[in-house]
Amino acid sequence: MNTTARHAILVFSSLFLTFSTFEGKSDTSPPSSTSDSALMPEQLLQIADTKAFAKYVFLVDKSLRTLFLYEREESKIKKVAEFPADIGKNGGNKTKRDDHKTPEGIYFFQNLIKPPQIPFETYGKMAFTLDYPNIFDARAKKSGSGIWLHSIPDTVPLTRGSRGCVVVRNEVIEKLTQYIQLKETPILIFDQVKFVAASEHEKKKSEIHAFIDGWRDAWQSKSIDKYIEFYDEDFKSLGYTKKRWRKYKEGLIGKYDFIKVSFDQPFILIHNDQLIIKTLQKYQSDKHTDFGIKTIHAVKLDGKYKIISEEWKEANPEGFELTQKQAESAAAASTSKN
Amino acid sequence: MNTTARHAILVFSSLFLTFSTFEGKSDTSPPSSTSDSALMPEQLLQIADTKAFAKYVFLVDKSLRTLFLYEREESKIKKVAEFPADIGKNGGNKTKRDDHKTPEGIYFFQNLIKPPQIPFETYGKMAFTLDYPNIFDARAKKSGSGIWLHSIPDTVPLTRGSRGCVVVRNEVIEKLTQYIQLKETPILIFDQVKFVAASEHEKKKSEIHAFIDGWRDAWQSKSIDKYIEFYDEDFKSLGYTKKRWRKYKEGLIGKYDFIKVSFDQPFILIHNDQLIIKTLQKYQSDKHTDFGIKTIHAVKLDGKYKIISEEWKEANPEGFELTQKQAESAAAASTSKN
Repeated sequence: MNTTARHAILVFSSLFLTFSTFEGKSDTSPPSSTSDSALMPEQLLQIADTKAFAKYVFLVDKSLRTLFLYEREESKIKKVAEFPADIGKNGGNKTKRDDHKTPEGIYFFQNLIKPPQIPFETYGKMAFTLDYPNIFDARAKKSGSGIWLHSIPDTVPLTRGSRGCVVVRNEVIEKLTQYIQLKETPILIFDQVKFVAASEHEKKKSEIHAFIDGWRDAWQSKSIDKYIEFYDEDFKSLGYTKKRWRKYKEGLIGKYDFIKVSFDQPFILIHNDQLIIKTLQKYQSDKHTDFGIKTIHAVKLDGKYKIISEEWKEANPEGFELTQKQAESAAAASTSKN
Repeated sequence: MNTTARHAILVFSSLFLTFSTFEGKSDTSPPSSTSDSALMPEQLLQIADTKAFAKYVFLVDKSLRTLFLYEREESKIKKVAEFPADIGKNGGNKTKRDDHKTPEGIYFFQNLIKPPQIPFETYGKMAFTLDYPNIFDARAKKSGSGIWLHSIPDTVPLTRGSRGCVVVRNEVIEKLTQYIQLKETPILIFDQVKFVAASEHEKKKSEIHAFIDGWRDAWQSKSIDKYIEFYDEDFKSLGYTKKRWRKYKEGLIGKYDFIKVSFDQPFILIHNDQLIIKTLQKYQSDKHTDFGIKTIHAVKLDGKYKIISEEWKEANPEGFELTQKQAESAAAASTSKN
């Protein structure tokens, strides 16, 4: 995966020129966020500055019928390009099979399929499958499947309305392939993307960081009551319910004199009341150290985020240490400017 | 995943009757392995007796143009059913895009796609995508994609030859859905499945168990030289090369007075010189205990298996302890019979 990410970064530089052309076309779009005063999508909060995660995020604004491509630029996010897109025939958020609506939420590209596997007359040059229904959709008992980002023959108008898929031109999807890392690159679909000033964007980001820090602090301080408060009543992970998760963690906490949990800059994606956080995690205790990728799904209920699922898988500590070092030197650089 | 697995087990009992009918049709097939003297596929070695993994495995014999379905029955494997299947127009193992050959190897079902997403006239009622090219294929620089298990309209003969996909009847694929757990259920594709007597099957299984035990013993005894001997020169995992993996593990080994690694009954899949092992792992040391699913890909070179990739993700210890207990009581029961 690291190799792919590195490859994606390499190809990027050579493609930037091509994309500048697309940028030139988008006169009616929200301003690019390269300048300090620029607007940023409120709910695309942070693209982590680590090779372990995708460097690009796609956003769909159904009301504008537009697909946006964002990338990280140091700790900020920056619009790379935007493209006209078709969406489901029917308005509103998908809830069930055959409702011909485009689902709204946080999805990840899964597989790439091309003709002759699928007919060119329906899908043009290619299709990327998405993971609808996701964890949030399953919780909401949504049905249906086969939501894709695909192209369409050049002769078909982009205003026809799809069965729920997001549809772009052949020339567009061909360019996008180089920004999509399967299983890793997110596409956030909104009825309407809200654009906010950089200052407000920072404020929202701080709220999420406070949530992550609060959760980590409860864990580090071994306060099981405080820690379990961060979990939803319907939490389910690795076959644990909230009650059994508490018991499991209580057992672990009892074994260590101290626990120190460090997170690398997290990847933060929000969609209304849904939150996904991915972060490289370094876990240290008096007895054991490990490195991994922690993935958290949370929902906002009565103004508070509650974790509904949590996953962990082993990762390379060198990646963590590398990006920590970068973060520290970036912090040092920004301090020295003051 | 546990819930799905449990569900799969529940539906099974109600479906067995239906499948008995299919069994009745298969007069020319190798004998079922329910009796002690029965033949078993040499290379489907063990379906782990744990809910963490799939209970069913599919096998394709290209020369027989037949799809077999196997399930675990206690520590043995048993044929559930078999079905006529179409395969790629051209003979031999797939190596590149558009060669119209069916790949041979160990694959896992990924996604389910149905009309109207894909045309009924090509795919019948549904298609399951497979993970070709897999880790072994990537190593062998094989190209192409879109290898699926799909159905076809009843009017199309099953002898036409596909573009590389495995093709079955509509009525068959509809029944199979209940045995397929996406991302988990394997399908092994062979030019020719070799069937061997139960005793020979046991002997092959012992060889793999000896490999796993040897690797575990080297790890437990903290013999880094012996341990690293189990890895291939081109090993790559989590961004580590073999050299850096050795350094990483050496560091970990140095921290503990003792290391104890227990495996639950592993899931063992072999395809010629390719081996995949999945197992629930309990790791204990003087300082730390954890539970997870270990997945190993290995290749046989000069008569010895060498690990080419290794993955670990957190799992529920209760699942491990449950199956360990079952294994112990099964062992006790079999001992008391002697």
